[in-house]
Amino acid sequence: MRMYDVIRKKRDGGELTRDEIRYFAEGYVNGEIPDYQAAALLMAIFYRGMSEEETAELTFAVRDSGERLDFSGISGIRADKHSTGGVGDKTSMIVVPIVASLGIKVAKLSGRGLGHTGGTVDKLESIPGFRTDMPEEEFIRAVNQVGAAIIGQTRDIAPLDKKLYALRDVTATVDSLPLIVSSIMGKKLAADDDCIVLDVKTGSGSFMKTLEDSVQLAEAMVSIGKRAGKKMMAVITDMDRPLGHAVGNALEVAEAVDILKDRGPEDLREISLILSSAILYLAGKAGSMDECRLLAEDAVRSGIAFQKFEDMIRIQGGDPACIRDPALFGKAPYEKEITAASSGWITHMNTEDIGKASLLLGAGRNTISDVVDPLAGLMLLKKTGDPVEKGEPLARMYTSDPERFAKAEEVYVQAVRTGQEAPAPVPLVHRIIT
Amino acid sequence: MRMYDVIRKKRDGGELTRDEIRYFAEGYVNGEIPDYQAAALLMAIFYRGMSEEETAELTFAVRDSGERLDFSGISGIRADKHSTGGVGDKTSMIVVPIVASLGIKVAKLSGRGLGHTGGTVDKLESIPGFRTDMPEEEFIRAVNQVGAAIIGQTRDIAPLDKKLYALRDVTATVDSLPLIVSSIMGKKLAADDDCIVLDVKTGSGSFMKTLEDSVQLAEAMVSIGKRAGKKMMAVITDMDRPLGHAVGNALEVAEAVDILKDRGPEDLREISLILSSAILYLAGKAGSMDECRLLAEDAVRSGIAFQKFEDMIRIQGGDPACIRDPALFGKAPYEKEITAASSGWITHMNTEDIGKASLLLGAGRNTISDVVDPLAGLMLLKKTGDPVEKGEPLARMYTSDPERFAKAEEVYVQAVRTGQEAPAPVPLVHRIIT
Repeated sequence: MRMYDVIRKKRDGGELTRDEIRYFAEGYVNGEIPDYQAAALLMAIFYRGMSEEETAELTFAVRDSGERLDFSGISGIRADKHSTGGVGDKTSMIVVPIVASLGIKVAKLSGRGLGHTGGTVDKLESIPGFRTDMPEEEFIRAVNQVGAAIIGQTRDIAPLDKKLYALRDVTATVDSLPLIVSSIMGKKLAADDDCIVLDVKTGSGSFMKTLEDSVQLAEAMVSIGKRAGKKMMAVITDMDRPLGHAVGNALEVAEAVDILKDRGPEDLREISLILSSAILYLAGKAGSMDECRLLAEDAVRSGIAFQKFEDMIRIQGGDPACIRDPALFGKAPYEKEITAASSGWITHMNTEDIGKASLLLGAGRNTISDVVDPLAGLMLLKKTGDPVEKGEPLARMYTSDPERFAKAEEVYVQAVRTGQEAPAPVPLVHRIIT
Repeated sequence: MRMYDVIRKKRDGGELTRDEIRYFAEGYVNGEIPDYQAAALLMAIFYRGMSEEETAELTFAVRDSGERLDFSGISGIRADKHSTGGVGDKTSMIVVPIVASLGIKVAKLSGRGLGHTGGTVDKLESIPGFRTDMPEEEFIRAVNQVGAAIIGQTRDIAPLDKKLYALRDVTATVDSLPLIVSSIMGKKLAADDDCIVLDVKTGSGSFMKTLEDSVQLAEAMVSIGKRAGKKMMAVITDMDRPLGHAVGNALEVAEAVDILKDRGPEDLREISLILSSAILYLAGKAGSMDECRLLAEDAVRSGIAFQKFEDMIRIQGGDPACIRDPALFGKAPYEKEITAASSGWITHMNTEDIGKASLLLGAGRNTISDVVDPLAGLMLLKKTGDPVEKGEPLARMYTSDPERFAKAEEVYVQAVRTGQEAPAPVPLVHRIIT
């Protein structure tokens, strides 16, 4: 087999066989196939797409390219939840304790923030002492003991995805459905879960800007997960505005805690409960999503979910004091309000740009080596659909470097559109795909 | 400027500006832009194409990427002829002496054979002593003295094309019109000619298999040459059968000599005269192509063209004895006939495969480092349209390694189709583009 022929076949719209995909995948990981041939193939895939069969084979090649986690030492049903990434999305810190408090095991590998989106690992690391780099054995012991643990993807999982993603990032081949699907699902399937719930974001703050694209992505991922023998569900949720009010690491932990204490913003609560219900339903905790939702609500109301989060923090070396009293996180040394320039209604928020404003304040990363400021970020005081008066505060910025305010405010103000009529309400959950 | 943005713009069908094309071209030549980003851009160009403006800018970037030849020391009108490559195409060795004998200066850089196509430099090197690697000064002196010289492309001309071509060759991005155009014309324009005649081949033995593609290629090249201030003409000639009877290096020199001695195969004579007329016409030797043709015919009939070839060989260090008596080339130590398996008419010759049969006998190169056997090759005894009797010889193979016969014969026999009806005649010259 020659890589030239594989490129040429895809270039001309052919369907690659399992052997051709494996030949590429293995040759690329071990360095026999050079970056330039991989880049040509990726661009051909960008234009020609991949069939469901091809996408599945590439996904399995990503999964099999490195270490696979062995969860056989975890007793009970193992579930995972994956979000395609958004702004203010702190649902993992809510959903994981809820379902774990109801007996589902969650051994979760999470990512770090990059660009406008945050990452659960960065958020959890704002809890003093919290360790996201446990060895596998200790990780599994923690899951067995308290029901859940969340660590970073530090292991040698899916090296093919790491190489491919780095290449896609510099060759303008990121926005390709089969490449996105195989990247996400290849990593997910390297773990050893029974049920996977996908939170596929849609709108200006998400990777997929249109509902149609989000549905396609969700369907493709659900289908491949099922091929691999997993129970799958995807919830398409709105990311045309940030989720909740808090954007930034410690700020988001505090808001997640609010929900676990049965208060906090309604949109965040709603999506967290739906994702929790989906996991509980797949895991067979009750016969309908509605019954599962009641279980989840009850776990919050009774305090067992909050208690589970505390247990998880403790077993991962963190100090749970700050989630009992979030004031203990401390406060960024500088804060500043952004006020409304005119009266009316907020009609739209360019959510990606709001993520960028938070990044500019120090809460995020432009490149993987950037260091995150745990206290930086934004508190949104008005969101899409809210009425505002001229001069009223729209948001509060937090940073440890006051020189960052000007640029962040400029980006924020540009991102928020105000109009003279209230916008039509947009659903939080657009669709559920099973 | 970032290469990422250039790739993305082309990926999405945008038109690259002059600055963007220069940024890529210069960065790629000097190694700042890596192969994988260039590969992604090439594949995007493969799908999206390039406008005439973009193609011209890329061509000029190729031209300007290295040394440009200075022909100001050559007195008189300077012309060049370029063929897109075929099988049995020895017209340069005929056309150059004809037009030089009529006062046109030809300072020609030629290529070597690769794959199924031969190269003029390899053919000329079968003449004992002939030097194709003269220093520029001596080359120009030779042109001034005898009117013509042909050397290899050994100078640092168009290094961007060398890098791009090597990359296209391994990323399945060779077959892209703007990339072909900029490669050919970028190199041609690095020389310093007044008139350029392009022999664009069409059919099974050429790069362009359909007339439509050949016309597109010819039109694009003529247009870019005119933008660069050159007098341009393209002749689209048939390469759905080999040109003449001889395929192989010394065999082709001998056949070219036949034409210069006013004999030899009619198709080769015809195309050589038309290409000569085109150069003479562009150079203003007479007011019509017909008048120019009479001049060319006369140059052959009178013997001045043959004399000019002899002068050229002598000034390039070659021994002209062998063109006076081609028996002096010697003969390959082994020869073998291929005979017809059935009676009928030859209806088609897969000309690329006939080129490959010659390559298999030792006359060509699979890779640039292969050494060519000057005496190996094929003499075609029957061509498309000829009637054959079962058992009659179709071709004679020549090699210095008799183990090569079996595979070459197999390829040859597969390439030649015989039928029960004579095929419709195909014109030698399909179109002239000015």
